[in-house]
Amino acid sequence: MNKQSRPILTVGSMAFDSVSTPSGKADHVLGGSVNYFSLAASLFTPIKIVAVVGEDFPKEHLHFLSKRNVDVTGVQIVPGKTFHWVGEYDTNLNEAKTLATALNVFEHFDPKLPATHVDCPIVFLANIDPKLQIAVLNQVKNHELVAMDSMNFWITGKPDELKETLKRVDLLCINEKEAFLLSGEKSLEKAAKKIQKMGPSNIIIKRGEYGSALFTPTGIFLAPACLVEEVIDPTGAGDSFAGAVVGYLAESGGSREMMKKDPAGWDHLLRRAVINGTVMASFTIQDFSINRLKTLTLEELMKRKEHFIKMLSVGA
Amino acid sequence: MNKQSRPILTVGSMAFDSVSTPSGKADHVLGGSVNYFSLAASLFTPIKIVAVVGEDFPKEHLHFLSKRNVDVTGVQIVPGKTFHWVGEYDTNLNEAKTLATALNVFEHFDPKLPATHVDCPIVFLANIDPKLQIAVLNQVKNHELVAMDSMNFWITGKPDELKETLKRVDLLCINEKEAFLLSGEKSLEKAAKKIQKMGPSNIIIKRGEYGSALFTPTGIFLAPACLVEEVIDPTGAGDSFAGAVVGYLAESGGSREMMKKDPAGWDHLLRRAVINGTVMASFTIQDFSINRLKTLTLEELMKRKEHFIKMLSVGA
Repeated sequence: MNKQSRPILTVGSMAFDSVSTPSGKADHVLGGSVNYFSLAASLFTPIKIVAVVGEDFPKEHLHFLSKRNVDVTGVQIVPGKTFHWVGEYDTNLNEAKTLATALNVFEHFDPKLPATHVDCPIVFLANIDPKLQIAVLNQVKNHELVAMDSMNFWITGKPDELKETLKRVDLLCINEKEAFLLSGEKSLEKAAKKIQKMGPSNIIIKRGEYGSALFTPTGIFLAPACLVEEVIDPTGAGDSFAGAVVGYLAESGGSREMMKKDPAGWDHLLRRAVINGTVMASFTIQDFSINRLKTLTLEELMKRKEHFIKMLSVGA
Repeated sequence: MNKQSRPILTVGSMAFDSVSTPSGKADHVLGGSVNYFSLAASLFTPIKIVAVVGEDFPKEHLHFLSKRNVDVTGVQIVPGKTFHWVGEYDTNLNEAKTLATALNVFEHFDPKLPATHVDCPIVFLANIDPKLQIAVLNQVKNHELVAMDSMNFWITGKPDELKETLKRVDLLCINEKEAFLLSGEKSLEKAAKKIQKMGPSNIIIKRGEYGSALFTPTGIFLAPACLVEEVIDPTGAGDSFAGAVVGYLAESGGSREMMKKDPAGWDHLLRRAVINGTVMASFTIQDFSINRLKTLTLEELMKRKEHFIKMLSVGA
């Protein structure tokens, strides 16, 4: 983290997950998009979370986040139970099957930003109801960069609200299938071009174990995934990927203004950001829940990144 | 093609294919591994085919190949019908489903090399019975580099013969699923390491629309696939990929000896070869049969390659 690192405001879910994968099971473990996002991004820059949890949510975890450069004063603790997701992965680790969702306290979540949060220069809207994404964005003043994630549930369920949010976003992270669903196209490039016209001039299309494709106003970057010996649990791969991407941009001066003034520099910066995201996700999936992210150091990340970049060299 | 281009001897199938894909159907069109391989490789270097066809095989096509730098004097024309493959692809374009196979004249194929073919420095053993692969290799003197392809049918059906062939091979091209089947491993890196111990010190694991992973004695290269607007027919992608890889190596001085004397240079050369293969395959799949390969020029290939390499740049 350098002196210019700007803080990121993020809104999304803090949850309990019950997950089964070919490698085993984890019951009622910590999960949720902002949990994964924050732990990843906080290796690069300070984070401010906006979220809601029930009274059953472990206070120690909030303390742990505070020590990790994550401001949790925007986390509302309300009577009731924390959001609970139950899902499983079969041998196709690229796709989670949701078995049950208990929204609990999330059902009436009304995100209110503390005064300390409204001037946050970088915003990441994790995958939640686009109405909530907009509500948060409306409270932030003078933001320099807005990134977001979404999913099929909102694309089909709240297309109008989603499109309103998209208009105000600079960078969209989205799964391949969902990019096809949102755009109505079947090829990556066509899908990206169509979504760019909806608002976000930068799109990262995530392809699970096969990597991702980045589309900026000036270029395309095809990023393979980082090889790992065994995938234990893919949950959180996308959110921690986004955490490292946005965290890296926040640390390295990435902004809407830079994108306009130096499009080539912005394109290169985003490529580097995607590489950081790719390597981050490769750690996340090597254990259940946020277990690996809790112990991961920037040094470990940089070491694997160095190794990974050698695997991308096209030869002299 | 430069002056140092060395010829490639290849053995495999010349066939009629009847294919259906989500984009349409093609009935009784030209196919077979050496057809795809030769058309791709002949943009780089002269090719000598060893194969068998029936009397129904179009002579004009053999003439066409001759004009394209492909020596067809080793193609046996025997009484009976040419090998016929019937297959289909559903929306998962990475995997062909074989509906029927009529071996016909291929059933009693006994590859005999003309005297003009036995000194060929580069050998590509396309995906056929490993017994035939060995029979051909036994007839070649002083080869400088041997590459091969294989598939699940031989891995499960003739594992001993396949392992004998593998011992004598420098470069194996194989699909991801088949690499897992052959090695008994579930991760790319573990699978590659295990297969390297079986003989081929270089392995390219093909992942369909998601690209490929190259393993050399000194490095790993992760190559995404080249984006195309629409995949019409994936048939021949792997064989034309191998054609450009081996063709490029034949043109650029790649050999077992070079691999030993200059391992880093060899690693870089193979990365470049994989890029050529990737771009070649992206043309193949844009039309049925060998249609696109028949008209493809080296200039078109180089132009798309230049564009593709920009999509692989990791940023400054």
